[in-house]
Amino acid sequence: MATEVTEYKQQAAQRAVNYVKNDMVIGLGHGSTAHFALLEIASRIREGRLKNILVVPCSLEVERQAQQRGIPLTTLNEHPALDLTIDGADEIDPDLNLIKGGGGALLREKIVAQASRREIIIADTSKLSPRLGTRWALPVEVVPFGLRPEIQFIQSLGAQVTLRKNADGTLFKTDQGNYILDCHFGPMKDPATIAHLLEKRAAVVEHGLFIGIATDVIVAGPEGIQHLRRKTGARSTTESPE
Amino acid sequence: MATEVTEYKQQAAQRAVNYVKNDMVIGLGHGSTAHFALLEIASRIREGRLKNILVVPCSLEVERQAQQRGIPLTTLNEHPALDLTIDGADEIDPDLNLIKGGGGALLREKIVAQASRREIIIADTSKLSPRLGTRWALPVEVVPFGLRPEIQFIQSLGAQVTLRKNADGTLFKTDQGNYILDCHFGPMKDPATIAHLLEKRAAVVEHGLFIGIATDVIVAGPEGIQHLRRKTGARSTTESPE
Repeated sequence: MATEVTEYKQQAAQRAVNYVKNDMVIGLGHGSTAHFALLEIASRIREGRLKNILVVPCSLEVERQAQQRGIPLTTLNEHPALDLTIDGADEIDPDLNLIKGGGGALLREKIVAQASRREIIIADTSKLSPRLGTRWALPVEVVPFGLRPEIQFIQSLGAQVTLRKNADGTLFKTDQGNYILDCHFGPMKDPATIAHLLEKRAAVVEHGLFIGIATDVIVAGPEGIQHLRRKTGARSTTESPE
Repeated sequence: MATEVTEYKQQAAQRAVNYVKNDMVIGLGHGSTAHFALLEIASRIREGRLKNILVVPCSLEVERQAQQRGIPLTTLNEHPALDLTIDGADEIDPDLNLIKGGGGALLREKIVAQASRREIIIADTSKLSPRLGTRWALPVEVVPFGLRPEIQFIQSLGAQVTLRKNADGTLFKTDQGNYILDCHFGPMKDPATIAHLLEKRAAVVEHGLFIGIATDVIVAGPEGIQHLRRKTGARSTTESPE
């Protein structure tokens, strides 16, 4: 089973990388699925099938991994508008809204997504969900200064809140030095309202709800690869696959 | 003129400190007007007129100043709900909405305000304005990682954007290590919509629009001291003055 899931992630990643063309500036997400996209891009560069690519990494870890594999890096300050980004997700609903942040890189991932013309999400089918919050807690990045009032505020919205820790019991810190609250809301009827309430809170640096951001979702599973496209809105794309 | 403005600030501060009672836990803002409240509290503690007060400072600078003057400090993590906060503002509209952040402490000031049952804003009358944005640029705190895309986004909303610098020409950094964009929108017809658009942006840590947050505004000027109270909403208070 674990091996199959790994294969599905890899299949979705390879399909997504077909959209990366020579001379593009792209974003690359953090996490086990996006990592397969990184490996695929590195291998196509090595084989000369992909030329003159620049990558904005969504975490310090992705930055290191890309460097080790000879992928040329850039920053949003050098290239504020990206052609596309390939990233994973923890949970995906039928409207292509997402929960992200299981790996803790949600802030940079959302900054990069908002700077991208196209946001391609790759996943195995286990990430599909009828409603966000069914399978995953919502990660919320909070500045240490306001931690406790924010826990109380999010509890007042009906969520059970856990402060994320590392395996050794120390507090998990993001690349920005903030904490992550994993907020168990259960299945959300109205994720956009929860997003809005969290965005109004000063201590919330960012939350893992990606509403209206993904333009494409490529999922692989036992029945093959599916390519879902956002139906409406300004970010819709109509390019043909491959 | 400068001397008079200083006197008005002091008058407003002294009036606001009348609402601080023994055993309260309060927030204290950053800036020249709030500094007079800090001095007044220190002097009342010294004279034994105020007992068992604890203060949450809104910046590292306020923390140092309070320590030097013997004001007992605490944190939001020890006291996540504050009785009241006294703070200044750069611009105040007739609905008691504010622009804050001239001093760069907007993030902590908003966190403290949102954790306070009562937010008392003190100012001289020069801070009153028919419309936010008339007299002051809107400060927006942005993570360095997403600086340039965010400048472009805010320009697309129609603002002229300046990256804040220190007097010596180096980039101004907030207590969290972020940058401040001073965004010249001009008089805003709908500050709440601008706030909402900025809150949706991942790279925006916080902005200086305080909408529906102030419960009281105490302004002093040539015609004396005025105490304005929020008319509607859950945060309205009806205590009598002094």
